[in-house]
Amino acid sequence: MNPTSSNSPAMVHVPEAELSKLVHRALARMGLSDAHVQAIAKVIVAGQRDACQSHGVYRLISCVDAVRAGKVQLEVEPVVTASGGPIVQVDAKYGFSPLAFERGLPTLVEATRRHGLGALVIRHCFHFSALWPEIEAITAHGLAALALTPSHAWVAPAGGSKPLFGTNPIAFGWPRPGPYPYVFDFATSAIARGDLELHRRAGQPLPEGCGVDADGQPSTDPVAVARGAMLAFGGHKGSALSTMVELMAGALIGDWTSRESLAFDDGAGVTPCHGELILAFDPLALGGGDADAQTARAEHLLNAISDQARLPSQRRFTARERSQAEGIAVPAAMYQDIVQLAD
Amino acid sequence: MNPTSSNSPAMVHVPEAELSKLVHRALARMGLSDAHVQAIAKVIVAGQRDACQSHGVYRLISCVDAVRAGKVQLEVEPVVTASGGPIVQVDAKYGFSPLAFERGLPTLVEATRRHGLGALVIRHCFHFSALWPEIEAITAHGLAALALTPSHAWVAPAGGSKPLFGTNPIAFGWPRPGPYPYVFDFATSAIARGDLELHRRAGQPLPEGCGVDADGQPSTDPVAVARGAMLAFGGHKGSALSTMVELMAGALIGDWTSRESLAFDDGAGVTPCHGELILAFDPLALGGGDADAQTARAEHLLNAISDQARLPSQRRFTARERSQAEGIAVPAAMYQDIVQLAD
Repeated sequence: MNPTSSNSPAMVHVPEAELSKLVHRALARMGLSDAHVQAIAKVIVAGQRDACQSHGVYRLISCVDAVRAGKVQLEVEPVVTASGGPIVQVDAKYGFSPLAFERGLPTLVEATRRHGLGALVIRHCFHFSALWPEIEAITAHGLAALALTPSHAWVAPAGGSKPLFGTNPIAFGWPRPGPYPYVFDFATSAIARGDLELHRRAGQPLPEGCGVDADGQPSTDPVAVARGAMLAFGGHKGSALSTMVELMAGALIGDWTSRESLAFDDGAGVTPCHGELILAFDPLALGGGDADAQTARAEHLLNAISDQARLPSQRRFTARERSQAEGIAVPAAMYQDIVQLAD
Repeated sequence: MNPTSSNSPAMVHVPEAELSKLVHRALARMGLSDAHVQAIAKVIVAGQRDACQSHGVYRLISCVDAVRAGKVQLEVEPVVTASGGPIVQVDAKYGFSPLAFERGLPTLVEATRRHGLGALVIRHCFHFSALWPEIEAITAHGLAALALTPSHAWVAPAGGSKPLFGTNPIAFGWPRPGPYPYVFDFATSAIARGDLELHRRAGQPLPEGCGVDADGQPSTDPVAVARGAMLAFGGHKGSALSTMVELMAGALIGDWTSRESLAFDDGAGVTPCHGELILAFDPLALGGGDADAQTARAEHLLNAISDQARLPSQRRFTARERSQAEGIAVPAAMYQDIVQLAD
């Protein structure tokens, strides 16, 4: 690894293989089974590689916290159930989610190829990862994908003041020629929970429209919003989408809503525990057979967007290329923390 | 019908059967086949009954315009193709969409019950209706539903200034005990195209954030925005969702994007022609078997929302009950227009 002084905070650049080894060791020391270590390390290193600071090595802390709270099953093997139909179910048995996804993925891809569309239902998983690694794992097979998951109840419905919804991300991907798919992955809350925390620690006001205080009054004070409620992006439309996430990735799949996940957490402050719904679509089956025309149509649209604006994930892909060339940038202090965790 | 003077504009109240008869006659006079007349009348009367002025009898004008432009097939019978799998395809053959949906619905419901989820792919339809009548037709079978459709390219991507996306509605429904499901149906544009028109005619400025002028500068002038571009709701997140609608209900299903629909229109000013994707989900198959627990969980969430805020579609359902009690309210001038169209 090479220290650099050009960035703030001071960053070190670590080759991917070296960072991966460190993350593996840190996870193994928490008592996680080798299968869980492999699956979690992959998404954490990918996050840091793509310069997603909030979903990179920083998440080792979430893992440590969850493990210390004694709620997560460290060595449990997810159970995949599939009947040959388009629905693939994975019971994560209260382990972390990445292994459950990995175990279900091949069957989901097979089911989607056979039926034209498929659903991966993951239940009872502790969830701390971004959704885009899962989306990209599906688009790599030439399939489109849509993923939804609740979190902890921090967000009030538009017009209300009491938290009901999680930050409830929605992620979507479309396969493209070349190395990078079209991918978005965003919280349906106006800001991420982590951003609220960062503003609180820095004593900085939030942007307008991100939350209300305990009396339901609009507020930019992060302390007041943490006591009151966050708001969804885009007013009543974002609030409706967040409701859809609770219904689809909660009630529909027979797993907890964000309120139930928060109740189960019971003040432990651990990463949410709930389910996830991932839908996959085969363009060949749904598009009437002319794959070249489908690709041309999508590329025409996506190129017309990138001619005038940035595509979602474009920053991540640029960071990925930089990481491949220069090693993965890690804040120096964080790097020392990982070395300690791995020791 | 009973004239009333309490509202502005002056409204008449027409019993549903009487309004329906008038709408049928008006549609039949356009040369539409009886099957198309029945299907279109149903959604137009439902729109007026629910006080959706923009999707009610006003849409007869859209029908007249489309028919006069000579693009719509008036007597064509949609062709349903299904292989016994979860995908049901309907070729609308350049007729209006409501009949295509009606023809595909029973097979979609059957496919969804059999496989746990299903997709209705409608291609080559002229589209002017709201999506909620379709969503409600699916939730009436105890299924959840998600519907997407492009429109005409009027909306620029976030950060851009050239129109690429349609107003691209997203609609979702969840079945509830009692007469009304949970339903939302909204444009991913910051305002509806019809609202832009209304502001232009009234010479009123648009709310902030709805559009840009031809130079890409934010503008509240409806004339400048009509020459420039509308914007998506919720910034880059809404823009990403609108992209998803183009990809899913355009490229994925092998039908036109909003740009292609506008190019086909070629200045005729007719309602868009493209495809539609409707996904349906069986809670019994996806939820692991405990239907009562699923319903209880969803009701718990939805009641906790309505305890503090209005649910989407609540206004529609209230209007529906009023219409059932008092007859359907129609602006008096519009009523005279329909009587003429039906004559």
